[in-house]
Amino acid sequence: MKKVVAGIDIGGTNTAIGLVDQDARCLDQAVIPTAKFDKVEDFVPAVRAEIDRMVSAPLTLVGIGIGAPNGNYYHGTIEHAPNLKWRGIIPLVEMFQKFYTVPVALTNDANAAAIGEGVFGSARNFRHFIVITLGTGVGSGIVVNGELLYGHDGFAGEIGHTIVDPNGRECGCGRRGCLETYASAGGIKRTVFELLATKNTPSVLRSTSFDTLTAKQIADAARAGDAIAREAFEHTGKILGLKLADAVAHLSPEAIILFGGLAQAGDLIFEPTQRWMETYMLNIFKNKVKLLPSGLSGENTAILGAAALIWNEIKRTVGTPA
Amino acid sequence: MKKVVAGIDIGGTNTAIGLVDQDARCLDQAVIPTAKFDKVEDFVPAVRAEIDRMVSAPLTLVGIGIGAPNGNYYHGTIEHAPNLKWRGIIPLVEMFQKFYTVPVALTNDANAAAIGEGVFGSARNFRHFIVITLGTGVGSGIVVNGELLYGHDGFAGEIGHTIVDPNGRECGCGRRGCLETYASAGGIKRTVFELLATKNTPSVLRSTSFDTLTAKQIADAARAGDAIAREAFEHTGKILGLKLADAVAHLSPEAIILFGGLAQAGDLIFEPTQRWMETYMLNIFKNKVKLLPSGLSGENTAILGAAALIWNEIKRTVGTPA
Repeated sequence: MKKVVAGIDIGGTNTAIGLVDQDARCLDQAVIPTAKFDKVEDFVPAVRAEIDRMVSAPLTLVGIGIGAPNGNYYHGTIEHAPNLKWRGIIPLVEMFQKFYTVPVALTNDANAAAIGEGVFGSARNFRHFIVITLGTGVGSGIVVNGELLYGHDGFAGEIGHTIVDPNGRECGCGRRGCLETYASAGGIKRTVFELLATKNTPSVLRSTSFDTLTAKQIADAARAGDAIAREAFEHTGKILGLKLADAVAHLSPEAIILFGGLAQAGDLIFEPTQRWMETYMLNIFKNKVKLLPSGLSGENTAILGAAALIWNEIKRTVGTPA
Repeated sequence: MKKVVAGIDIGGTNTAIGLVDQDARCLDQAVIPTAKFDKVEDFVPAVRAEIDRMVSAPLTLVGIGIGAPNGNYYHGTIEHAPNLKWRGIIPLVEMFQKFYTVPVALTNDANAAAIGEGVFGSARNFRHFIVITLGTGVGSGIVVNGELLYGHDGFAGEIGHTIVDPNGRECGCGRRGCLETYASAGGIKRTVFELLATKNTPSVLRSTSFDTLTAKQIADAARAGDAIAREAFEHTGKILGLKLADAVAHLSPEAIILFGGLAQAGDLIFEPTQRWMETYMLNIFKNKVKLLPSGLSGENTAILGAAALIWNEIKRTVGTPA
């Protein structure tokens, strides 16, 4: 018998489902198109079918962990997720518990990433850390004294929606100047277009439209020495470093882990972020906080994070009382 | 026999010492001049003499709680406090434990205020809250899931040193634009002088020098209808509200308690702070977070906070596991 956890990563377009053992090995996986399911009542049996197909002797399913946008751990619900078709409050854990007697837990994707780093990744030795996901948006998962910080209502850890400039860029949340509008994949693109508008510096990025430009193209251009692309990374690191210094002033973590698409730009984003974070940090915190890349390898990081939610409760790696 | 805790509030000028029972009554108190003691080795016996003088039958001393600038709970030390004569790292708890076998605990003044509110004050029913001290500086004590947030090194909760504007006002910490330079007693004075310089609006505050102007005078002028003083409170509330919205995005508390001198301006500071905090808050948090005044009454709030550090460990009001 080999124990496995089903990790489910629900995205607006696709849902990835995988079986993860206690050594962070993803033994099997499948993808189903989230957007195809108009009703969540049809989605749950489709996920169930994939899990049941994958789990056969000698595998034993010991739990189901789910990462989802606007996932609320306390309530086991997805609440008003703008990128999903399912409106209102979806009692997803309850829906899965109708089919399974093993534990089912749900949280948002950034919190799942944080638990994944704590159980399997870069934060295995830390009791105070922050995971920042730099993707389409900017999310965060905060671990304090070994416990994920959920706050009063389960929604703590929205560092992507702290405000850089209250008169700044329009954010999808309806406000202006959130960190997400600067430090996400879309944010660095906006910065490139601002620089292209302000400067006369030649750049290969001048031949690409806003709709088609990607963060990866900007990283490639920066590596090839493009001045606009390099300045965009510098500017992004300055703003991210400033807000991470603020996060440190709140939380005094041992480490901050940058996760997701934009973090894959490596030194291009890590170097300026670390430098500006130290510049903006209060003296008592300077040179104490590690800035680290994700320790979850491969393409299954979101599945590992979701599965870690259950493995953590079994192993109590993150969350063991001091 | 009646159990009492000695609460000690160490300030740059004076140290207040009091005996506090488990119902937050301050039974006796004394003040000694901190600044008179060049050596901490002379200060400790002087505090001891006051405690020993106050404690006699039927009173029984069950612990000593200390609030001090740059107090580190983990180490029981005062570390590099700029407003104290004692340089370096002072092992204050160890020094007291030479004379007492009862528990001795130390934390910084804002954390003591937070524990005081949790045990005796406005936060008695909350497990997730923030206390912001608006005094000479701006301090904060953060309680998460019933536990004071100390972070990796004991220095978490420095919301007063989050950055409003990296090119803004010079801060005592050596950086620029910290919240403390706007939302403290000194901060609102700086705002008044900025407004006096920018505007031609008549104001009673034009006849007072920078050195003599106090936050209380500004509050009195605002209550009398002075336009500059009123605008200074509006501006202070706007900046404080912005940074409290950021704090909520990190922590999702049930309540934020404003404590200290500037908070005594009442509606003048609470009304704009609440309004701007709601304006700048992410949708999922709007209209959920209470903004409350301190529930510690009288002039002994700092002594109550320091004593609460011990009463909390005895009663486990703040810190009872869920």
